[in-house]
Amino acid sequence: MIKAGIMGATGYAGNELVRLLMGHKDVEIVWYGSRSYIDKKYSEVYQNFFKLVEGRCLDDNMEELAKEADVIFTATPQGFCASLINEEILSKTKVIDLSADFRMKDVSKYEKWYGIPHKAPQFLEEAVYGLCEINRDQIKKARLIANPGCYPTCSTLAIYPLLKEGIINPDTIIIDAKSGTSGAGRGAKTDNLFCEVNENIKAYGVGVHRHTPEIEDQLGYACGKEVRINFVPHLIPMNRGILITAYASLSKKVTYDQVKEVYETYYGKEWFVRILEKDNCPQTKWVEGSNFVDLNFKIDERTGRIIMMGAMDNLVKGAAGQAVQNMNLMFGFKETEGLCQIPMCP
Amino acid sequence: MIKAGIMGATGYAGNELVRLLMGHKDVEIVWYGSRSYIDKKYSEVYQNFFKLVEGRCLDDNMEELAKEADVIFTATPQGFCASLINEEILSKTKVIDLSADFRMKDVSKYEKWYGIPHKAPQFLEEAVYGLCEINRDQIKKARLIANPGCYPTCSTLAIYPLLKEGIINPDTIIIDAKSGTSGAGRGAKTDNLFCEVNENIKAYGVGVHRHTPEIEDQLGYACGKEVRINFVPHLIPMNRGILITAYASLSKKVTYDQVKEVYETYYGKEWFVRILEKDNCPQTKWVEGSNFVDLNFKIDERTGRIIMMGAMDNLVKGAAGQAVQNMNLMFGFKETEGLCQIPMCP
Amino acid sequence: MIKAGIMGATGYAGNELVRLLMGHKDVEIVWYGSRSYIDKKYSEVYQNFFKLVEGRCLDDNMEELAKEADVIFTATPQGFCASLINEEILSKTKVIDLSADFRMKDVSKYEKWYGIPHKAPQFLEEAVYGLCEINRDQIKKARLIANPGCYPTCSTLAIYPLLKEGIINPDTIIIDAKSGTSGAGRGAKTDNLFCEVNENIKAYGVGVHRHTPEIEDQLGYACGKEVRINFVPHLIPMNRGILITAYASLSKKVTYDQVKEVYETYYGKEWFVRILEKDNCPQTKWVEGSNFVDLNFKIDERTGRIIMMGAMDNLVKGAAGQAVQNMNLMFGFKETEGLCQIPMCP
Amino acid sequence: MIKAGIMGATGYAGNELVRLLMGHKDVEIVWYGSRSYIDKKYSEVYQNFFKLVEGRCLDDNMEELAKEADVIFTATPQGFCASLINEEILSKTKVIDLSADFRMKDVSKYEKWYGIPHKAPQFLEEAVYGLCEINRDQIKKARLIANPGCYPTCSTLAIYPLLKEGIINPDTIIIDAKSGTSGAGRGAKTDNLFCEVNENIKAYGVGVHRHTPEIEDQLGYACGKEVRINFVPHLIPMNRGILITAYASLSKKVTYDQVKEVYETYYGKEWFVRILEKDNCPQTKWVEGSNFVDLNFKIDERTGRIIMMGAMDNLVKGAAGQAVQNMNLMFGFKETEGLCQIPMCP
Repeated sequence: MIKAGIMGATGYAGNELVRLLMGHKDVEIVWYGSRSYIDKKYSEVYQNFFKLVEGRCLDDNMEELAKEADVIFTATPQGFCASLINEEILSKTKVIDLSADFRMKDVSKYEKWYGIPHKAPQFLEEAVYGLCEINRDQIKKARLIANPGCYPTCSTLAIYPLLKEGIINPDTIIIDAKSGTSGAGRGAKTDNLFCEVNENIKAYGVGVHRHTPEIEDQLGYACGKEVRINFVPHLIPMNRGILITAYASLSKKVTYDQVKEVYETYYGKEWFVRILEKDNCPQTKWVEGSNFVDLNFKIDERTGRIIMMGAMDNLVKGAAGQAVQNMNLMFGFKETEGLCQIPMCP
Repeated sequence: MIKAGIMGATGYAGNELVRLLMGHKDVEIVWYGSRSYIDKKYSEVYQNFFKLVEGRCLDDNMEELAKEADVIFTATPQGFCASLINEEILSKTKVIDLSADFRMKDVSKYEKWYGIPHKAPQFLEEAVYGLCEINRDQIKKARLIANPGCYPTCSTLAIYPLLKEGIINPDTIIIDAKSGTSGAGRGAKTDNLFCEVNENIKAYGVGVHRHTPEIEDQLGYACGKEVRINFVPHLIPMNRGILITAYASLSKKVTYDQVKEVYETYYGKEWFVRILEKDNCPQTKWVEGSNFVDLNFKIDERTGRIIMMGAMDNLVKGAAGQAVQNMNLMFGFKETEGLCQIPMCP
Repeated sequence: MIKAGIMGATGYAGNELVRLLMGHKDVEIVWYGSRSYIDKKYSEVYQNFFKLVEGRCLDDNMEELAKEADVIFTATPQGFCASLINEEILSKTKVIDLSADFRMKDVSKYEKWYGIPHKAPQFLEEAVYGLCEINRDQIKKARLIANPGCYPTCSTLAIYPLLKEGIINPDTIIIDAKSGTSGAGRGAKTDNLFCEVNENIKAYGVGVHRHTPEIEDQLGYACGKEVRINFVPHLIPMNRGILITAYASLSKKVTYDQVKEVYETYYGKEWFVRILEKDNCPQTKWVEGSNFVDLNFKIDERTGRIIMMGAMDNLVKGAAGQAVQNMNLMFGFKETEGLCQIPMCP
Repeated sequence: MIKAGIMGATGYAGNELVRLLMGHKDVEIVWYGSRSYIDKKYSEVYQNFFKLVEGRCLDDNMEELAKEADVIFTATPQGFCASLINEEILSKTKVIDLSADFRMKDVSKYEKWYGIPHKAPQFLEEAVYGLCEINRDQIKKARLIANPGCYPTCSTLAIYPLLKEGIINPDTIIIDAKSGTSGAGRGAKTDNLFCEVNENIKAYGVGVHRHTPEIEDQLGYACGKEVRINFVPHLIPMNRGILITAYASLSKKVTYDQVKEVYETYYGKEWFVRILEKDNCPQTKWVEGSNFVDLNFKIDERTGRIIMMGAMDNLVKGAAGQAVQNMNLMFGFKETEGLCQIPMCP
């Protein structure tokens, strides 16, 4: 039984971490960190935990927490983790950072896209990008995990195999993404009010969304060269779920079976990645509440392009679930422990 | 490990039964019954189960199933279970009927409100009304369980203690209920199309809803006399959740603490019933996906009435979850086994 | 052509006023008042008006506005209108106040329920409660209109005739109300975020909602004695629409036709009140975007009660539409001018 | 005052036609055609019209209707209009067909994508594609209008100017489209039930959607050569609205101002097309209930592509509104007559 602390426990990702860790047989939560609700009972902030969680919210004190916890999850705003982390903390505990602080190796790229200075560039080299299906071995040995962003997780898993195998042209990749509103967080903003989101759809961050360079980095690793993509996210009137629809030109003529074979090679043994049967399009409903990513593709011979599709729950595989999966790998637990939720429908 | 068969597995309640039973360590599902999808893979009907369920849908053959299964769940239309059940079946297996066939003891009342003849009145006496918190001891010994309706479960749990203790006047009870659309089932009806339900609210079945006599029966047991209520359900643009708001005149002057004490006496040791803290109104979001019922009340001294409120997930405590809870009691499993889902939010 | 000014033009009711007044052939809008968006183009705050409205938001200066406008609409927080209004303003312009400041004649009741001192009690006597179907003659002569609250409009119209005719017992009235989220306003509050409201339903303000005394006042006028009711509103995951379900005991035995006759007597000539055909329950969808109120009722002989139901669009008949209807009466325009929108479905 | 008949009046597009035509000062509706609801009062099928429409549904008899009506709208399934239309009908009345029967000039393309034989290919040449902003002059003289599909309207208006001006490469066009569920019609299908659509998003018809060749035809006219695109529509949990996000490679280096200038040249005088200000992304909410199309674009210099975005109400500009706009042109009415609805928000 290990002890886990959560910093930023009162955001939506933090709430989901609590839900998942409570069902994990090897973990005890010892710290519900929250700047906004210090001393308030956690179950008063999230009443789904009424009678289930007795703890109160504590200040976000990483030094203190490092003494108590075997693992710290930081589900905090960009820059927060980097501003606190240090060698002493990492010598005592493992850190899984759900923010973007350690996802990109190039500090200038981070500072350009996020518009803030990086306070701990010395750990960029060491940090492991926690996309479990791609980087499993490094994750097992890591002290510091950069938990991937929601869009990058779904996008990379869908595109990586075809790019790595040279099936698609890296210069032609376009990702049109759609996300439920929990991805926007629990901050009180007019734009995220029910009446503004309901019965509405819009693109946002066109050409400037911060997940763009993160995805480009991962795709670059796949094909061994720098990649530039178009990435356009859209806000959808639903709570949970991400769907990505990605387009690319085929580098060579391939059949359905050949592409299917590639995906099976990469993911056939992965529990959390499901390659759907032919012509079944991924739907966010079929993965809701679970750590699954559903993938499929369609070759369009008329245009010589392939359409790659992926669906997942942005709060699970796109945040808290993947964080727990990383923890499982780091501590030698069964990879699926605590993550066996069956998707809930309707 | 017992074997369970589900008749009507492709409705929403059947789907939820599969989700819950798959997470139950003592149960194996051996039969996915469905009239509409015979021979189709169950995971093609509900793709959340892709790679998780290999079985195909089978015809709804209760005789055959009774030979294989230790327990049969019938999540089927009214009249179906009663038309098939017989002594031979009950001698081989236990039956938990999620339809209304065995909920009321008075066959004429059933026939009047449901408009169909009852095909197995000989089992009405034996059948136990499976409201676990009220009838636990009888359930443990039962062969045939009438799993309560969704509205009756929430309404009865909220009102029963105050009525039994003589705190409210049985002639003054009004229940205004609100339900998500999954309660209407998966049948393809124009009224339940997205565009008809979304951005809309309406009352339905005013004065004639079939759950009315079921609730009246249960409340009648509480106060030892026949009870007549007003029950008006409303359709809400959400998938899951039932909220009931019940009104009654107080029989005597009582304080908040006295009423709270009554609820605590009845439910203080019940895992699945949560009496909220003062002035916290139940919300369906805080119980979604779980077997919890959240209750609270408000005394209005201006009018001498009390307002009783309850929230639960209509597919879990209102259907499949309570069915599993009944099964746990009947087979001597831990009552919460397979039912420890934490409510999912948002 | 008269000139109209709107104070609080950037709230949801203000936005709806702009929509309606732009379609009114006798009105020109001369002032888009807003504290939060001073100097910003109105069409940047509400982009539905892009290319349709050129004006910029102005400070909420009532003195100044009174010199320019023939009528001022105040769609502002409680207390605001009362703090600014004076005889000089009323000598120059007519005022239609969409807040609660002048709805109740008893200043102590206002101060108790709203928790703020009333700054202009001298105008309480003069102010006319702008429920057009009930107070039409006084409205025509008024300088100051207290535009009714959304819940009180729907509740009073549904209950008033039966109470006035002595058909229902005034001591037994219970109103269970349901509202879309636009009623909560456009303020950035966590409780009104999409993820908190969607897939959720809750009661709020149980026993303490401020519309309670307003409804009680109006019902008191109907039956000539003080009335105490239970009023419980609920928040529904939809943008627009109010549904009320009201319960009362019948004072005498009446038939469907007799009750129908009463409603027809009161509303048969009213354009905006539609008494539905037998057994058709009001639905918010059928009135969305329009100034209609749909009413119906059901006698329950089993319990001796009657259920009265009403549906309307909270932003139209429940706010801006009724304000325009009041303006039409005050200025001698055709009562339906600018209010002929047909309900939009789906 | 002309007389209009609607065949298929009980679908969602038909319902919207009734709403719009009732507000049109020069039109009287004389025929509410419906196969499914013959003899039923129209206002019982759509209760928004209660007390507003007295007519009953009539059989879909085009011959008979042609004698009475100056214009016939066919909001009917594919193949229906083509199976009934003939020279005699067109000699008596004008026809605006909202189905796909006369949208494409190439009969074999129609038969391939729609899978049914074309029953009236002799009128393909004469039929005018009713995209008003592009084909205004021909529409004015037409007897038979092929009212454009919803996706093609929004897509073509967004892409046409840039393609015609040679700014984008026609071989690189990808359209990722999102639609509310009213686009799926009012047929009772499981896939369109509230519980299946709500809290879900999926792509559908990937690579095979029938609007693909229709869009390709129109874009082909723009650039004078055959065009092949990728078009992937998605189903969104909202009632109304279409958003398209289109991607193409720039043929030459252009500035924001240059592209803006092109759009202004094409649409600067168009009432119904609004080119938004820089960096404002189109949102379906800002056009809901109106005949507006909001357009904008973003140049991505990193990739050399341009992203073109468009939002409109699929039932108005995407169906009934454009049909009325066509009628106005054909009969010499003011083009905006009956189409001045201001977008409704929230």
